[in-house]
Amino acid sequence: MNAVHRIEIPSILEVNNNILGSVGAYIERAGINNVVVLFGEGIRDLFGEKIMESILSRKSLNLLETYDYDDIKLENLMPKAFTIPYKTDAVVGVGGGKVLDAAKYIAFLNKLPFISIPTSTSNDGFSSSGCSLIINGRRTSVHASMPFGIIVDLDVLKNAPMKFIYSGLGDIISKITAVYDWYFEESNNAAKVDDFAAMLAKKSVNSIVRMPYTQITENFFLKEMVDSLTMSGIAMQIADSSAPASGSEHLISHALDKLLENPQLHGIQVGIATYLMSRVQEHRYERVEKFLTDTGFFAFVETLKMKVEDFQKAIDLAPSIKPNRYTYLHVPENREKAKVLLKSDNILKRILV
Amino acid sequence: MNAVHRIEIPSILEVNNNILGSVGAYIERAGINNVVVLFGEGIRDLFGEKIMESILSRKSLNLLETYDYDDIKLENLMPKAFTIPYKTDAVVGVGGGKVLDAAKYIAFLNKLPFISIPTSTSNDGFSSSGCSLIINGRRTSVHASMPFGIIVDLDVLKNAPMKFIYSGLGDIISKITAVYDWYFEESNNAAKVDDFAAMLAKKSVNSIVRMPYTQITENFFLKEMVDSLTMSGIAMQIADSSAPASGSEHLISHALDKLLENPQLHGIQVGIATYLMSRVQEHRYERVEKFLTDTGFFAFVETLKMKVEDFQKAIDLAPSIKPNRYTYLHVPENREKAKVLLKSDNILKRILV
Amino acid sequence: MNAVHRIEIPSILEVNNNILGSVGAYIERAGINNVVVLFGEGIRDLFGEKIMESILSRKSLNLLETYDYDDIKLENLMPKAFTIPYKTDAVVGVGGGKVLDAAKYIAFLNKLPFISIPTSTSNDGFSSSGCSLIINGRRTSVHASMPFGIIVDLDVLKNAPMKFIYSGLGDIISKITAVYDWYFEESNNAAKVDDFAAMLAKKSVNSIVRMPYTQITENFFLKEMVDSLTMSGIAMQIADSSAPASGSEHLISHALDKLLENPQLHGIQVGIATYLMSRVQEHRYERVEKFLTDTGFFAFVETLKMKVEDFQKAIDLAPSIKPNRYTYLHVPENREKAKVLLKSDNILKRILV
Amino acid sequence: MNAVHRIEIPSILEVNNNILGSVGAYIERAGINNVVVLFGEGIRDLFGEKIMESILSRKSLNLLETYDYDDIKLENLMPKAFTIPYKTDAVVGVGGGKVLDAAKYIAFLNKLPFISIPTSTSNDGFSSSGCSLIINGRRTSVHASMPFGIIVDLDVLKNAPMKFIYSGLGDIISKITAVYDWYFEESNNAAKVDDFAAMLAKKSVNSIVRMPYTQITENFFLKEMVDSLTMSGIAMQIADSSAPASGSEHLISHALDKLLENPQLHGIQVGIATYLMSRVQEHRYERVEKFLTDTGFFAFVETLKMKVEDFQKAIDLAPSIKPNRYTYLHVPENREKAKVLLKSDNILKRILV
Repeated sequence: MNAVHRIEIPSILEVNNNILGSVGAYIERAGINNVVVLFGEGIRDLFGEKIMESILSRKSLNLLETYDYDDIKLENLMPKAFTIPYKTDAVVGVGGGKVLDAAKYIAFLNKLPFISIPTSTSNDGFSSSGCSLIINGRRTSVHASMPFGIIVDLDVLKNAPMKFIYSGLGDIISKITAVYDWYFEESNNAAKVDDFAAMLAKKSVNSIVRMPYTQITENFFLKEMVDSLTMSGIAMQIADSSAPASGSEHLISHALDKLLENPQLHGIQVGIATYLMSRVQEHRYERVEKFLTDTGFFAFVETLKMKVEDFQKAIDLAPSIKPNRYTYLHVPENREKAKVLLKSDNILKRILV
Repeated sequence: MNAVHRIEIPSILEVNNNILGSVGAYIERAGINNVVVLFGEGIRDLFGEKIMESILSRKSLNLLETYDYDDIKLENLMPKAFTIPYKTDAVVGVGGGKVLDAAKYIAFLNKLPFISIPTSTSNDGFSSSGCSLIINGRRTSVHASMPFGIIVDLDVLKNAPMKFIYSGLGDIISKITAVYDWYFEESNNAAKVDDFAAMLAKKSVNSIVRMPYTQITENFFLKEMVDSLTMSGIAMQIADSSAPASGSEHLISHALDKLLENPQLHGIQVGIATYLMSRVQEHRYERVEKFLTDTGFFAFVETLKMKVEDFQKAIDLAPSIKPNRYTYLHVPENREKAKVLLKSDNILKRILV
Repeated sequence: MNAVHRIEIPSILEVNNNILGSVGAYIERAGINNVVVLFGEGIRDLFGEKIMESILSRKSLNLLETYDYDDIKLENLMPKAFTIPYKTDAVVGVGGGKVLDAAKYIAFLNKLPFISIPTSTSNDGFSSSGCSLIINGRRTSVHASMPFGIIVDLDVLKNAPMKFIYSGLGDIISKITAVYDWYFEESNNAAKVDDFAAMLAKKSVNSIVRMPYTQITENFFLKEMVDSLTMSGIAMQIADSSAPASGSEHLISHALDKLLENPQLHGIQVGIATYLMSRVQEHRYERVEKFLTDTGFFAFVETLKMKVEDFQKAIDLAPSIKPNRYTYLHVPENREKAKVLLKSDNILKRILV
Repeated sequence: MNAVHRIEIPSILEVNNNILGSVGAYIERAGINNVVVLFGEGIRDLFGEKIMESILSRKSLNLLETYDYDDIKLENLMPKAFTIPYKTDAVVGVGGGKVLDAAKYIAFLNKLPFISIPTSTSNDGFSSSGCSLIINGRRTSVHASMPFGIIVDLDVLKNAPMKFIYSGLGDIISKITAVYDWYFEESNNAAKVDDFAAMLAKKSVNSIVRMPYTQITENFFLKEMVDSLTMSGIAMQIADSSAPASGSEHLISHALDKLLENPQLHGIQVGIATYLMSRVQEHRYERVEKFLTDTGFFAFVETLKMKVEDFQKAIDLAPSIKPNRYTYLHVPENREKAKVLLKSDNILKRILV
């Protein structure tokens, strides 16, 4: 008989204003003595000094090495992973998705804790145990470990381009269609829903879509967004699968990544696909519409001039991305329905060209 | 260096309508073969047949024994715990707080999984690892284990007296003042906040206080309430303390339990104290007021004719209940402020006599 | 699919000469700050000062309370458990089997680490997660937790009466017949052997029965004995059952405990029964005979004038002690064979009257 | 305060005669449904049919894919790791050290259980969580996971060339000098010994060096050897370091690997170095000498014509292999002492040229 389910959660979770200067203090307090830091492209110039200073100023914390490195090609990342100083007892990553994935994987391969310091939160990668690497030339999701620490400076997020915030919101709203797809899979005996993971995923989205705010760059709202993305990362870990956070809407985005020369940010594509799929599922679409309209997500998307044709192709390609799953889009009728909606739904007609 | 934080969560979490008949199926699917069931007072007559039938109907699941037992006096509970059949591999509790605590503790003492089937959710006990027993004549909180399973039939909750729902809501809203007290403690170097536990506790309350509903007995709202109480239980487990879910407002309720011949339901007292403390903390009190007003909590409390004097005494007694903590009420000025509010605040003046 | 098997082992394991004075240092180094100490009967006078001094001399370690307490009656132990200071973060037990069981259980009920300081090692209780309490008037084995720390001063063991050492040796040699019974059970589909637990149990006995020594009170030999008993405790924990350490030979001893006004030490009875059962099993009996002869165990037993009749009755009673098991003694023919051996085997004829 | 120490141990441990035909049964019983199998060079021809048959014959076990693959070059192994079927829920490795390391790492990268089926046990790699890969052209030890299963067919070991058995014995005896080096490090404040790991490492060697046997290829002896190597693997995992199993004697062997065109088997080099270091440490060298003489290890080594000069160079190089450690060989005087012994010790003079 399997005992109570054990899961891993971050030991450090700091989400607040102007805290880059406290990074060293948070890490030291967790009992870590020797770290290496990876900076994403251009990040060192922006935040490097502040972070390194905060580490160097701690009595029992040493900065063994810093790297400007966000190469996620496996063939480069792997050997690199084994060149870090043997004394290292934690790997810190600072920047966007790529450097966080690189640092997360270097930590995993060395069985070391990973400390995640996202400078933009365009998706839940900063808080999940998964990693997206380029293997044999293709984007591939691989296993790594849950971040030991997550440190998010809201002022940094605020000053990042708006598209990252919209992308984060698009990734959060997707839990609505993702969880619904998961239950659909279960009802078709194609999966077993982990009730607790599903509950957390739902809470993560419900707590933000229902909250009042004046503008999406206000602290309270941004913090809620970060917390929600964090919970989404935990939900995947509990389920030991991406299912609670990623359904048919994610398959459409993955398909677009394959089809397009220059795809848009993950969460942007996911957000649009979430609205589409919520209409296909006929489940909570008013809520999705209201959230993506009120936050300005749709208005922003409108400026991107994304093509209806691309979405049509993506819908057809989607099921083949994860043949072992059984989402709404794995049913031919629903693909047709989705393609019809692309041309008939007023919002989609407006935001896509 | 401490590794990633490991926590325990329920393996079974079923919250839905009319699912008492599936209890056996849920338990069997989790790989359990032999169970004993404890029923609270009067519970066997109401739901016993349905639950036992659902267990007996499973091929690989045996019902070894059933008991009508909700005695939480340690001197009776302990020896009782060691009389269950040696083949037992899970203990099921069905009913209110007392039988759940009794079953949870019997499971703990036998290192067996506990399956929690609350017939009313007036507080987060059904989902927490803690246990409230009577030891040497006094209510005492002791350690036990996280429930392995939580099964909640919404139709059962709906048909329970309304006071239980109000009590559940009162216990949820208290996370607002509890978490605020916790940060207050940290800022006074009297505690270390577990950021993740605090985040979950906040999500648990935010997701429900912000949700739209027509009446509090509707499925969607009740499910959200149960999920929130469940998350609150998890938050305490993560923090390995009751701090994320219980602050000054709980101390007032504990004090009332000591002072009164016939105290009200835990969550009822806590809800009132939460409103009071949110005014003292000057933190989110509009939100608390709106929630307790809209749900009808205040209107219900008004019918109870609770006494201002009792709250005055409770405020003075509160800090001594947990001398090792440092909540707002541990500061003399705040106790005075609270007692003034009892007489000056319009809502409190209305609901208390 | 169940993941890799996780087990718990002691974090502190110190077995050496004259180390009572270092107890405080070992505990402090493990990160513990506040302890309570339980002393068995007469133990405080012998070792109390030295141990308390070693604790009080540590800068970051506090001695909150000390007790002279080795009452293992559940009805007394339970309420007692909840009277220890709330600041306690570890429970230390010093003395023989009873105080260790009492302290171990108090620690378990408070979810605190237990530090085991045996002054005699007449069985593997000091290193096991199990606890032997008196419940409803009967000796009962209950679950507790693995000791967090085990500290054994060899000089203390040396100065304890010889019977305790002989008892320890009797308990170790029993792994030979116990493991053999376990495989016998498996071959009869009455149990599933945990291969790793069985291997550890065998190693624990093989490493000592094969070692050279001049006298059993020499450091090297005593250390090996303590280590072997420790491994035996771990083996039970891995198997989540006493099977790897306790078979038909233990049933005979348990039966003698029931039958006799004044039973002998557990390990003494077990040792004799192990020799008997090794003859019944026709497995490694020369090894058992050589070990119990060379160490002087048999010679010591001879002085006790234990009765053949008692063993006859015990053999008949044995299977009923654990009806759910299926050892050699659960087969009628083997009980007959055992009783015949009691009268025909030269050694048994000599050591029993 | 850190809780009780949790470690991982294999769930499957089968060491017996003629059990290759039961491999499928063992795996299925552990709840695994879909496996891939890696065979080392030439292994498929020898044992492939028997093992595949045993898997294919199980109702709920599928053989998704088999590979002839024992390339441990990271640049080849990594991408390979991500080409296994997505349904895989365990990776099985069959053969010598290289294929086991390859399979172990592929399992680790996919977070899957690894089942270790060594056809020769020349060192403890088959039972350890570590992995020896070729990274940037150099042999490098990296982290992986503890084997989920270990299945050893003694008949297979028996029919492997004798050198593998001698190598296994050489690796076991090294625990004597390794543990002594570890305590030396601690006494010089260069390390903290994990007492439990040290105890297990000692038991692993003591249980075999003291056992009687007629020839080293007899079942009882071989099983003891496999069990000891398994325990050594566990000891390293408990210590989360190779220290309990690898000290100055291993550094000499690593140095020889660097210096020599064609180094001998790991355990052969280690065994010789263990005898040398036991003389340097002046600790249990009679025991080491007796074991390596009686088993025929020295006689076998004599036939290899290994050069004194190589050992001299290796002794000088040894400390630089692990600069962060502080073994006996890290002390200049001891290196001199060792080099003198190479020329003065009668055994070394005989077995080296």
